[in-house]
Amino acid sequence: MKYLQGEAHALPGHRTALAGYAARHFLFAVEDGVATVTLNRPERKNPLTFDSYAELRDLFRALATADDVKAVVIAGAGSDFCSGGDVHEIIGPLTRLDMPGLLTFTRMTGDVVKAIRACPQPVIAAVDGVCAGAGAMLALASDIRYGTERSKTAFLFTRVGLAGCDMGACALLPRVIGQGRAAELLYTGRSMSGAEGERWGFFNALHAPEDVQAAACTLAQSLAAGPTFAHGMTKKMLQQEWNMGVDEAIEAEAQAQAICMATNDFHRAYHAFVAKRRPEFEGD
Amino acid sequence: MKYLQGEAHALPGHRTALAGYAARHFLFAVEDGVATVTLNRPERKNPLTFDSYAELRDLFRALATADDVKAVVIAGAGSDFCSGGDVHEIIGPLTRLDMPGLLTFTRMTGDVVKAIRACPQPVIAAVDGVCAGAGAMLALASDIRYGTERSKTAFLFTRVGLAGCDMGACALLPRVIGQGRAAELLYTGRSMSGAEGERWGFFNALHAPEDVQAAACTLAQSLAAGPTFAHGMTKKMLQQEWNMGVDEAIEAEAQAQAICMATNDFHRAYHAFVAKRRPEFEGD
Amino acid sequence: MKYLQGEAHALPGHRTALAGYAARHFLFAVEDGVATVTLNRPERKNPLTFDSYAELRDLFRALATADDVKAVVIAGAGSDFCSGGDVHEIIGPLTRLDMPGLLTFTRMTGDVVKAIRACPQPVIAAVDGVCAGAGAMLALASDIRYGTERSKTAFLFTRVGLAGCDMGACALLPRVIGQGRAAELLYTGRSMSGAEGERWGFFNALHAPEDVQAAACTLAQSLAAGPTFAHGMTKKMLQQEWNMGVDEAIEAEAQAQAICMATNDFHRAYHAFVAKRRPEFEGD
Repeated sequence: MKYLQGEAHALPGHRTALAGYAARHFLFAVEDGVATVTLNRPERKNPLTFDSYAELRDLFRALATADDVKAVVIAGAGSDFCSGGDVHEIIGPLTRLDMPGLLTFTRMTGDVVKAIRACPQPVIAAVDGVCAGAGAMLALASDIRYGTERSKTAFLFTRVGLAGCDMGACALLPRVIGQGRAAELLYTGRSMSGAEGERWGFFNALHAPEDVQAAACTLAQSLAAGPTFAHGMTKKMLQQEWNMGVDEAIEAEAQAQAICMATNDFHRAYHAFVAKRRPEFEGD
Repeated sequence: MKYLQGEAHALPGHRTALAGYAARHFLFAVEDGVATVTLNRPERKNPLTFDSYAELRDLFRALATADDVKAVVIAGAGSDFCSGGDVHEIIGPLTRLDMPGLLTFTRMTGDVVKAIRACPQPVIAAVDGVCAGAGAMLALASDIRYGTERSKTAFLFTRVGLAGCDMGACALLPRVIGQGRAAELLYTGRSMSGAEGERWGFFNALHAPEDVQAAACTLAQSLAAGPTFAHGMTKKMLQQEWNMGVDEAIEAEAQAQAICMATNDFHRAYHAFVAKRRPEFEGD
Repeated sequence: MKYLQGEAHALPGHRTALAGYAARHFLFAVEDGVATVTLNRPERKNPLTFDSYAELRDLFRALATADDVKAVVIAGAGSDFCSGGDVHEIIGPLTRLDMPGLLTFTRMTGDVVKAIRACPQPVIAAVDGVCAGAGAMLALASDIRYGTERSKTAFLFTRVGLAGCDMGACALLPRVIGQGRAAELLYTGRSMSGAEGERWGFFNALHAPEDVQAAACTLAQSLAAGPTFAHGMTKKMLQQEWNMGVDEAIEAEAQAQAICMATNDFHRAYHAFVAKRRPEFEGD
């Protein structure tokens, strides 16, 4: 059993491997460079707990240096994605915390999103059934989302007396589905259907419930085939340019792409093209 | 008859009430915590005048401290929303102003949008028929918009020789309908149909003309039922995070949501859930 | 034959004309104030070369002071828009450059986008067939895009081992089609169909292949009819407000629109309205 290791190990030659990691609060498996995180309490629609938040945060932080994981799929066991923070296990205890305790909690949940956005691997959410509250935020924090007709995505913080600003929702959701649609979902907490999600750009595609996780894995495998260093740079720059001016973003991309042009994968692609064969990327 | 009071009164214990406010340049009514602003010169499609701009600015500023208003609906009398700045009453006089006078005017109209965005109440526009120029900006400045099939929304500043950058249009419109669609509407001044508006995310939904204002009021009432403190925080953070980086936005939300977790409404929601009844929010 | 002149000439009374400009690496024509840039190597689907990048950069920089061009159309000869950087003429040489050389290249291509965004003329792309790599970026850098059913737009940098961050793609594409859809296109390099492009807001409209360039020219002519000073201000502010807060954007627009209200075109529009005739704008 491997333990999660932090960024202190992110030195050249100190890369870590996650293939053997035995997760405690969800299922975790690595196959062909694709890690799959499966929230696994289907009888409760896969709620999050204090422990699973913390482990998700640590896992995604560890992915920053994991050399054997090239793409990630997040899914839920059974016919739901994630019901969010459990009312009994999360909401109840929160009502008894003092302010430093509350801030510790909201920072921890926010850190899950920060870690998902910061790891270099593209993250793909396979969303069937209920996708609610913090669960909706896990989907939103992902790079790409596949849904199903019966997906019900709800940012329902308002239903427990809270604001829509949770784990970055007011920043991320407007850029994904537009400011007006985001406002409605965040104020009302109403469910977005699968069809709406696809039409609005929340879901990249809809699949049959029995196919959605496989489709996410297929996409993840194709991204894991590389060029993975470049994918990591794409992810970094999508984050980095979030609030830059256009000219500054263009200069930032000139530098980032020049770095990618100095990689072997760029040369491999060129030589494969000249030889009329598919490039085989190696991530360096 | 009540007069509008400014933010100097926004101290604890100095909350103001707007229920009795007698508007001079539009209709104003408060019922069940929902204020309805009705532009009321239907024979001219409800144009704006210097006076109505100023009164709208003062009203939305006063809403910042109005304790008896929890949500706002903006609508137009008859079968149109608002035709914008009147050519004879606005455009003509503007051609005779010097530069300080012009800037005073453009700042005043911009202040209307600033005040709509700054008040804590969600604002819902019910848009039927003509919605043009500054009228389109009142709709765009709202949080949520309902339209009708026959709504015609036009940012037609260009038609009077002006730029599309009016009252924040170049900032707000791209985030609501996308940069490319916004550019076309702002350069050409062409009308966006109701169907386009719904498809592009400008309208949250379309309703029949005879129903659109009632639908906006129903939504406003449900938001007015609370949690209103949290709704105000959602609105604040949607504004606040407009041009933050993702990580900074997540930290801002951690703080904002921790504040909301210290409210009684959060506790009320939890206890109602445990008792299997609907929570009754009180806004504190 | 005219030569391109830089911004040093952009003084009052030093306006330049581009009507006689004889382009070397693409076709260039000016008619009725509309300049048309036609990438012209249809047997190769109109690839870009080092020379055509540099000439496009210089041309769009020269447009900043060109008094005789009021709108621009970019199109491709034959049945394709642009296949992007040529593998043999661009990719191959890049694999032999050192880091300063690579950065010089990525900055040059980025400068093409900067120049397209900086010139005051609205730029309209007429996109049929293949629109790939740097070609897709030329379309994305434009203000308005018309496509066809058979348009295939692909940000395929990843296919040659590079990142999706090229020429501003990670900044521009998410604001045009949404963050989630942009992420998928940039990670995978897959083609966006014409229908998807219209549905997602990349294309403002689809036209038949034989009509798409004419439609772009018709729109360009209507924008060239003015008010051109105001259109330039609209374009400037769409760029300027990209990463401003809402309140700051509203103040910026108050100033920008006050400037436009001091133009003769604003007065012309008013007097034409009073006289019940169409305004004739002159751009001052």
